Amino acid sequence: MHELKVALGDRSYPILVGSGLLGGSEPLARLAEGRMVAIVTDTNVGPLYAARLRGSLGGASTLIEVVLPAGEANKGWASLGVLFDALLGARFDRESLIVAVGGGVVGDLAGFAAAVYQRGIDFVQVPTTLLAQVDSSVGGKTGINHPMGKNMIGAFHQPRLVVVDVDTLRTLPARELSAGLAEVIKHGAVADAEYFDSVARDLPSLRALDAEALAAAVARSCEIKASVVERDEREGGLRAILNFGHTFGHAIEAGLGYGQWLHGEAVGAGMVMAADLSCRLGLLDGSAAARLREVVAAAGLPVRGPAWSTKRYLELMSIDKKAQRGTPRFVLLERIGSAQIRKAPNEPLAATLAACSG
Amino acid sequence: MHELKVALGDRSYPILVGSGLLGGSEPLARLAEGRMVAIVTDTNVGPLYAARLRGSLGGASTLIEVVLPAGEANKGWASLGVLFDALLGARFDRESLIVAVGGGVVGDLAGFAAAVYQRGIDFVQVPTTLLAQVDSSVGGKTGINHPMGKNMIGAFHQPRLVVVDVDTLRTLPARELSAGLAEVIKHGAVADAEYFDSVARDLPSLRALDAEALAAAVARSCEIKASVVERDEREGGLRAILNFGHTFGHAIEAGLGYGQWLHGEAVGAGMVMAADLSCRLGLLDGSAAARLREVVAAAGLPVRGPAWSTKRYLELMSIDKKAQRGTPRFVLLERIGSAQIRKAPNEPLAATLAACSG
Repeated sequence: MHELKVALGDRSYPILVGSGLLGGSEPLARLAEGRMVAIVTDTNVGPLYAARLRGSLGGASTLIEVVLPAGEANKGWASLGVLFDALLGARFDRESLIVAVGGGVVGDLAGFAAAVYQRGIDFVQVPTTLLAQVDSSVGGKTGINHPMGKNMIGAFHQPRLVVVDVDTLRTLPARELSAGLAEVIKHGAVADAEYFDSVARDLPSLRALDAEALAAAVARSCEIKASVVERDEREGGLRAILNFGHTFGHAIEAGLGYGQWLHGEAVGAGMVMAADLSCRLGLLDGSAAARLREVVAAAGLPVRGPAWSTKRYLELMSIDKKAQRGTPRFVLLERIGSAQIRKAPNEPLAATLAACSG
Repeated sequence: MHELKVALGDRSYPILVGSGLLGGSEPLARLAEGRMVAIVTDTNVGPLYAARLRGSLGGASTLIEVVLPAGEANKGWASLGVLFDALLGARFDRESLIVAVGGGVVGDLAGFAAAVYQRGIDFVQVPTTLLAQVDSSVGGKTGINHPMGKNMIGAFHQPRLVVVDVDTLRTLPARELSAGLAEVIKHGAVADAEYFDSVARDLPSLRALDAEALAAAVARSCEIKASVVERDEREGGLRAILNFGHTFGHAIEAGLGYGQWLHGEAVGAGMVMAADLSCRLGLLDGSAAARLREVVAAAGLPVRGPAWSTKRYLELMSIDKKAQRGTPRFVLLERIGSAQIRKAPNEPLAATLAACSG
């Protein structure tokens, strides 16, 4: 088992990564002891893993299970309302604990519920998709979507513990595994060239669900993410490098309607677009951009955005949270392993949009 | 003008209290300069004060006004949705500023919107009721109601500035002024016997809207609240003494349905009940409890709860946020000016409920 720590003072927490952790996690059992606990999951994941998880939650004074409808389209007010009704109906107090079991949708939504239920209660992330394991479950970003934008409503609220059982990836559709690999590739691209190379090399074993390769990659990705979050918890600056590929990616998701492309698929194409833009601005070698594009493709991800006009892309990007007064900012690569954040002039941006879409 | 400071490290902020501050507040003008600003108000307060406030917001890059339906019954999802739609529709980004102008409903709701819009933006409180001026606008508690409980969904999010213009109290209904005095009396009762005496003495001038007396009381009440919040921002312990009268008060509000009694009216009766319970537990002199009851009555507030069974009261109290695993806790007085927090045995509690209701 890999054990990491996110060091954030009194909001520090451990991340456990391994095989078979779901049913017998000591740290989770200790956290749940004597408390009111709600397992929050969805209609896909609940039937597969909720029962197994109860093995770690035997000490809870009350244990309820809230099963939300699966899918990004359900990451909104309606599901949040269902969850609050359940917590209040069971008289959950401020000492209660939420355990989020599922992908990013469940984790973000349950985490946000924990952030605002009675002005904040504890929660634990048990991510069951690769995307959630390497990205959304670490760092405390929680939130829900609004019809006018993804994650527009949310809070920073750190979990007390993250338990990653890579065995859960065995039931993950291949398309979602690829989507998770987008974030793994991203971590290498913005922060660690050596890791980027090892991921590129290990792609076949990762896609074949080799448990050891998966646990190693998840652990290293969490480590990179944790070190960035530690230095910039509330996204004042540095943390934004984790949004590599996301300005384009969010525009793609928003324009298609959530759930058409998976988040990681949009980020895959978005990274290729951001690398292309980096080249056009003279920051990155063409060969490095080509290499990134190859690795994204080898992970089973799209490397082009939908065939929209430049105007449409710009409009979609101006509402992104990372936009400053309507002007989108981009995470650009200087080389594989190093990123910076900039606005971009319209001309090269339009050229990138034309070259990398359709 | 009185100027105080709430000292919370990088979340510190000033509170300005005086007459004529609405249209010409320099600190507010500086904060708004060059930013997208939303005035959030309600159908009662907007027509009276929003235009005047624009005098301090001339430097905003964009200025919108969101007018929500007035009243505690509208402190919920629907109003929050209207506000988010307006912010997103106007493409407000993370650097935007919300200025909440109104009573506690507007301040709590707009503050909560600021807490979770794009994971948190700045906001300013411009409270226009006495209750909001001395209580809800200071300390960063924000939130909305749920059909199953008051303020059940919320966040701690400190304002950047609080501007109190006591002139706004001239349009406040007398009943609401009395409700605000409940919190003023509370501050004396839990923290400052001398202030309690001066408030008791000044009640006639306060109720006659003497500007100087009002500004002095608001400033001292804010000072007491600020000093408590500074020592316990997230209500780990000490801050809970500000909930004197609230365990009973919240039960009364919840049981009647929000908006039947004003919050301060419920707190008025709740303080009398809490003092009665303090006597029964041997903590407080009967004469001090009688004195508190007199002062509450002289402020124009109810001194008895509705005629409900003990069972009904207990049920309503068990869902209160201050309840620990279903057992309500009470802020009790040791003497005027000093409070402590305890659970209470059923027998004296039932006696208090019987003696102080109906």
